Order: sequence, then structure tokens, then C-alpha cells
Amino acid sequence: MAKVDLIVIGNELLNGKISDRNSKELGSILNANNMELNRVQIIGDNEQQFNEALERSLKSSEIVITSGGLGPTQDDLTKKMLGDYFKKPFKESNEALQLVESIYAAREKEYNKNVLNYHILPEGVSALNNPTGHAPGLFYQHEDKLIFSTPGVPFEFKSMVELEVIPIIKDIFKLDKSIYQFSIRTWKVPESKIFNEIDTKLWTALSKFGVISSLPHIFGVDIGVALRGSDSELSSKKNEIKDLIMNSPVADYVWQFGKLSLEELIVFEAKNKNLTLGFAESCTGGLCASKITDVSGSSQVFFGSIVSYANSVKIKSLGVLNETLNTQGAVSSQTALEMAIGAKEHLQVDIAVSTTGIAGPLGGSTEKPVGTVGIGFAGPLGSDSKIFNFNGDREILKQRFAHRALITMLEKIREI
Amino acid sequence: MAKVDLIVIGNELLNGKISDRNSKELGSILNANNMELNRVQIIGDNEQQFNEALERSLKSSEIVITSGGLGPTQDDLTKKMLGDYFKKPFKESNEALQLVESIYAAREKEYNKNVLNYHILPEGVSALNNPTGHAPGLFYQHEDKLIFSTPGVPFEFKSMVELEVIPIIKDIFKLDKSIYQFSIRTWKVPESKIFNEIDTKLWTALSKFGVISSLPHIFGVDIGVALRGSDSELSSKKNEIKDLIMNSPVADYVWQFGKLSLEELIVFEAKNKNLTLGFAESCTGGLCASKITDVSGSSQVFFGSIVSYANSVKIKSLGVLNETLNTQGAVSSQTALEMAIGAKEHLQVDIAVSTTGIAGPLGGSTEKPVGTVGIGFAGPLGSDSKIFNFNGDREILKQRFAHRALITMLEKIREI
Repeated sequence: MAKVDLIVIGNELLNGKISDRNSKELGSILNANNMELNRVQIIGDNEQQFNEALERSLKSSEIVITSGGLGPTQDDLTKKMLGDYFKKPFKESNEALQLVESIYAAREKEYNKNVLNYHILPEGVSALNNPTGHAPGLFYQHEDKLIFSTPGVPFEFKSMVELEVIPIIKDIFKLDKSIYQFSIRTWKVPESKIFNEIDTKLWTALSKFGVISSLPHIFGVDIGVALRGSDSELSSKKNEIKDLIMNSPVADYVWQFGKLSLEELIVFEAKNKNLTLGFAESCTGGLCASKITDVSGSSQVFFGSIVSYANSVKIKSLGVLNETLNTQGAVSSQTALEMAIGAKEHLQVDIAVSTTGIAGPLGGSTEKPVGTVGIGFAGPLGSDSKIFNFNGDREILKQRFAHRALITMLEKIREI
Repeated sequence: MAKVDLIVIGNELLNGKISDRNSKELGSILNANNMELNRVQIIGDNEQQFNEALERSLKSSEIVITSGGLGPTQDDLTKKMLGDYFKKPFKESNEALQLVESIYAAREKEYNKNVLNYHILPEGVSALNNPTGHAPGLFYQHEDKLIFSTPGVPFEFKSMVELEVIPIIKDIFKLDKSIYQFSIRTWKVPESKIFNEIDTKLWTALSKFGVISSLPHIFGVDIGVALRGSDSELSSKKNEIKDLIMNSPVADYVWQFGKLSLEELIVFEAKNKNLTLGFAESCTGGLCASKITDVSGSSQVFFGSIVSYANSVKIKSLGVLNETLNTQGAVSSQTALEMAIGAKEHLQVDIAVSTTGIAGPLGGSTEKPVGTVGIGFAGPLGSDSKIFNFNGDREILKQRFAHRALITMLEKIREI
């Protein structure tokens, strides 16, 4: 399997300004193309670090991709560093000029070769089309190694890798073996219990099929098994693993074999059952709705959400009773219930789920500490609500609250 | 300035399952503490890669932090790899046992030393308290180098670094020089124009104050200048830079000197002016509201959002006219206007902003391609709406639409 190293370049990735998103994207693209992301190095805009990183990557991987530093400003050093590393002189390239002119023309702009220098390249380096931006990428073949330089902006990175880089790699390497990451997705159980208490033999049993990974995330644990083999071998391995799990006590905690997100699964299952969905959100502040609408095609099942951060909106739009708010408080089981019932009526949906809680850091009390959330639902089979308690800072709590609401949504869809 | 290397460990970070969030967090924490994140290496659960990475990091930095691989499952190899690297035998540690027992007791659980081995450590390694999780961290001093192992889960990582790691480093190193990242935040202008067309002398002029970075992001470009010096030197440098910018044509595009996010600035300025805010969201599906409610204290100014994904909700909750939807369509300037007016009335807020657009990948047409969005507003000085066009995939477009709506919100607050 072809191995790829990624070098992410930019001071802004080291000083806390932004998160690197390209590693995840590249890992995902490579996985889908039977290649492997071997290692990522994140470095500053610094020639010495670049040289060290490139030398190391060329030792261990056939393919090196750099991201970042291709733009028009003076801290964009990648092209210079690449030329210096391979000791190549810089020259005007007619091919590159034509490519860049066509990129600009496609965006109804004119490339000014007196101001920008995208068409000047180290000898032997070619320019790569940028399907979603202006600065072209770079490609250089050094002995049996391929080096690609791509933009740092995540969507430019993604489109260039998918549309330009991968086809070149596939052209040069022959890639035939299949690999498949089989996912066993659990919820409502901590990682330490799955393998150490609920089924102590499971890890060993799964290991026979391939390398296992166990990934705790915000609302559960994903167990991955990396399968290899022909399509028919993969298919029979998948069935054997499913049987193994369904005969294990871990089965009670599995919500999906597969790779759909919770929100994708909700949209998929609601579509299949012809159900329409909505939310009434206080503490999650629109996050539940935003997650569902991340799914393309969600408009077929999702009608809307009443984000009722202020009590006045809870009363007016959702019909929560003044008395409930005064006697039980906004964060209460009864308020959650009335919000869900109100949203079902107001949005005219089959199932509505509500959230009302305290994400903090302010607003907690001894009785209702930060992390308390009421989740309600109203559906064709009735309505109810419940109080949950979670840990974390404001950001994490909002995520946990939203995930708990989505879990309730999926459970209610499955009951129908 | 003390240099820190980070080694992020986990197959899940290389196969596209999750994004590394700890690099950004660490960069930010170190920056605030006058330290520097030198380099990040992301590697798999693999002893050879670990040894290579650690050797390299020990060469260049005084402090090495690893994240991940501390949990209870068999792919959690960090402790083993650390012990092997320094050739230290594993022993039961009474100190570690006491710490772990206290961690469990604080969560009203009992630590089972027959099942878990958190209390067994390589000789010379000590256990670090985990303020928000169960698995303890590790600390080892090797000659003049400090090695810390911390959990991979972002909020556990953050709390352990802030509360345990940084105090140890500060104890051992003396850190006195101040560094300050001054931010000049621009919008509505592409990166290539700022320095190459609008003010061609700006880069050189700013360079006199410190290292410059130029970071394009989803709705603008942040120009950073890394300042060093005493508090009074920093203060006068900041004022000189502000003067320089205010006398440059770039000033027209600056929306902030500072580090607040767009949503934090909206909450801050709305509080100062005693304004209440709300949204009517179609294509952004709750994302505008979710961003605002990420800000602690937003409940003082933010009342809510009507997420009206379905036309029925636009009509019922926002009073959008059937005729408007039939003749102009849901994605139109008139619908955006009626949504904003409806939200202002329904939510009883001072300023309401609306979004209605096509995030794709489906739903576009020649006349209204994917990326078209109508943004409306209604406020004390009147109401209006406008159509914008953006590029990107569904995820990026939703972000761009939401940012455009937030820009409109901030502009309307500033007009009052």
C-alpha cells in the first residue's frame, strides 16, 4: 500500500490561531483510495524545519504532500523552499503561465504577471490546477518519490488532492489490494467497560480479523477493525464480525455498523419511515438543527427548529406555561416536555425533540449544576422528558446536549 | 523562549476518522504563557514511529508533550513505549495508586487495580492528575528535558495541560519575556489584494515591528504581527501599528484590532448598546444561532432563531407570503426580507437577520446556482435584503452564509 507523508506548513497552525483540518481530510481521501497516511508533521514558515521535515518524509514514504505557503504574500515560502531543497533554479514556465491565466479567466479575472509570480517555478517542477482557488499547486518527481505542494485552505486542499493529486498517484502507482475499515459504533457505555468488563474476550476475538482501534468520542465509542482482502473476503469477514458482536453482550450498546454520522442516520431512517422532524432548542441554541441540516437532503424530513433562548420565545412560540417557568424553572423536565409538545404542534412535524439546560460557565446552582439538561420529545406514540447530567466546558456541554437530543430523536424514530 | 514539541498519537488521526484539535489548543495555551509550539508530529499507534518522533523532538525542544494512547485498551501504548524508549522497568507506584484512587473517588467510582493498570509505571515516571477524566497523565525528566504524556480527548488534554503541565514547566524554567500577537482583522478583500494592490508598502512597514503572518479564513484575512518587549514597549508598538493602519487604505477593510470572534464581538457590542438580537434561518439551519450561543453570556442579548427549513414554517412562524414563495421562490431577496421582518416581530427583538439560500449539492439552477443566498435584516432604522453568491461545498457554503449573516448583524449594530 502506497504510503503518504503530509507536511503542514504555517505559523498560524502552531500559535493557536487555527486547527489543521487537512490531515483528517487527507486520511479520509487516502483511505478511500487504498493508500495510507503514514505521518503528519506540522511546522512553522521556516526553511530549516521544512528541510528537516522533507528529508524525514522522503525517507519513509513514497509520496510527500505539503499543504500551505503557496499564496501571494511574503510568508508563503513553499515554492522557494522546495526549489532550494532540490537546488533547482527558478524559471518562467510557459505551461504554468497558461494554467494560471486559465484559472484566472475561469473566475473572470486577469492574471497580472508583473505583480504575482505563480508562473515562475523551480526547474522540473510543474504547476497543478487549483479547482477552487487561485494559487496553483506544485508537482515534482524526484527519483522514485513524488512531491506535491497544495494550498492550506481546507476546501482548496481537498479539491486539489481529489481532482489533481490522487489521479497522478494512481497513474504512477498500481493500487489493487482492497482495505476496509469496519466500524462497530457503540453508545451509552464508557470505553474502559467494553473490553474490560462487558466482554473481556472481544478484543482478542476481533484481532483475528485485523488491526483494532478503539475511539471514544463525544457520545460513545467507535470500535474499528481494519480488514484486508478481496471484495468477497471482505464481505464474509464483515458478516462474521457482525455475528460475533450480535452474540456478545456488547450488542446492547451498538447503534450502528457503518460510517454514517448520527445525523445522517436520523435523516436516512426518517426518510425510510416517512417521518418529519423538528426541534425546540434552548441550551443547544440551534446546534441540533445545524447538525441535521449538515446532511444533504435533510430538507425532505426536517421542517425546522424553534431556537427559544429567551423565555419570552418559549412562551410565545412553544406555548410553555408561565406557571411552569415560574414554579419549575426553564431548566426542568416539565419545561422540556412542554417545549417538545409545542414544537410538534407549531412546526407540524411527526417527532419533535427539545433541549433546555445549563451550558455554563455561569447559571448553575447546587440543585441544577452546570451540565444539567432536560430533553423532551413528542411523537405519534406519546411524549415525555428526562433530566440528564454531563461534564465539560461550555463548548463540550453544548455538543453533549445536542448529541443526547439526537440520540433521543433516533430512538423515537426506531420505535415507530 | 522555551520550545515545546507535540507528538499526537493515534491511528484514528491518520485514517480520516477525526481531526487533531490539540495542536491548536496547545499553541494557544503556550502563546499565552510565553512559550512556543515548535513542531507537531502526528503518528500512528506504532512503536517505531514513536521512537523516531521522540528522538527528533528531544533534539530540538526542551519540552516534549505527547497526546493520546493513555486509555485502558490494548491500542493505548504510550506508557509502554515511553518506558521502552528510556529502558525503564515497570513497577507498581504507591503514589500513582493513591492519585488514581482519588481520581475515581472524586467521580464516586472505585478503581479496580486488578482490571486497570494506571498505577503501574516505568521507573522514574510520575503520574499526573487528570482533572476531567480517568486516565492519569505521565511526567518524566530526562537530563535537561521534560517529557509529558497527556490524554488525546481534547477537553481532558486541555485541562491537564493548563492545570498540571504548565505549572510544572513554569516551576522548572524561568519565563519572563513578554510576547504578544497583535491582530489586524480584515474582511471583504482577498489576501492577494491587501499587500499587492491596496497598500504595497504595508508588509515592509509592519515588518519593522515583528514577524508578520497573513491568514485568510472563511470571511476575511487576519494579519498578525508578533510583538516582543516589556509591557510598556508592547503598548506603544500597538499604538504605532494602529496609527499606521488607520492611515493606510487598508483601514476600510479592518473590522477589528483584537482577538474576539465575530460572534463574540456581536454579543459585546449589542450588550453595550442594549440591543436584542434574533435570526430567521433557512439555509444556515440554526448555525447562526449556534455560533452566537457559543458565546458565554449571549443570553443577555440573544432571544432566539426561527429555523424555518420548510416553507410551511416560513409562512406560519415568520409570515412570509404564499405569493412571495410562489412568484419569487424561497431563495429570493423578497423572501429574505419578509423572513427578517417576521423574525423581528415574532421574536420581539431589536435586530433580526435572515438567511435563505442553496447550500447544495442539489437544488441549484442556472438562475440561482448552488451558493446563492439571500440575507435580510430588520432593525430600528429599517429593513432590507440582498442576494450574495459564494463558492464551496455544502459545509463551506453553510459557514460562508452564516458568516455573511453575522457580518450583516454586526454592521447593523454599528449603525445604531
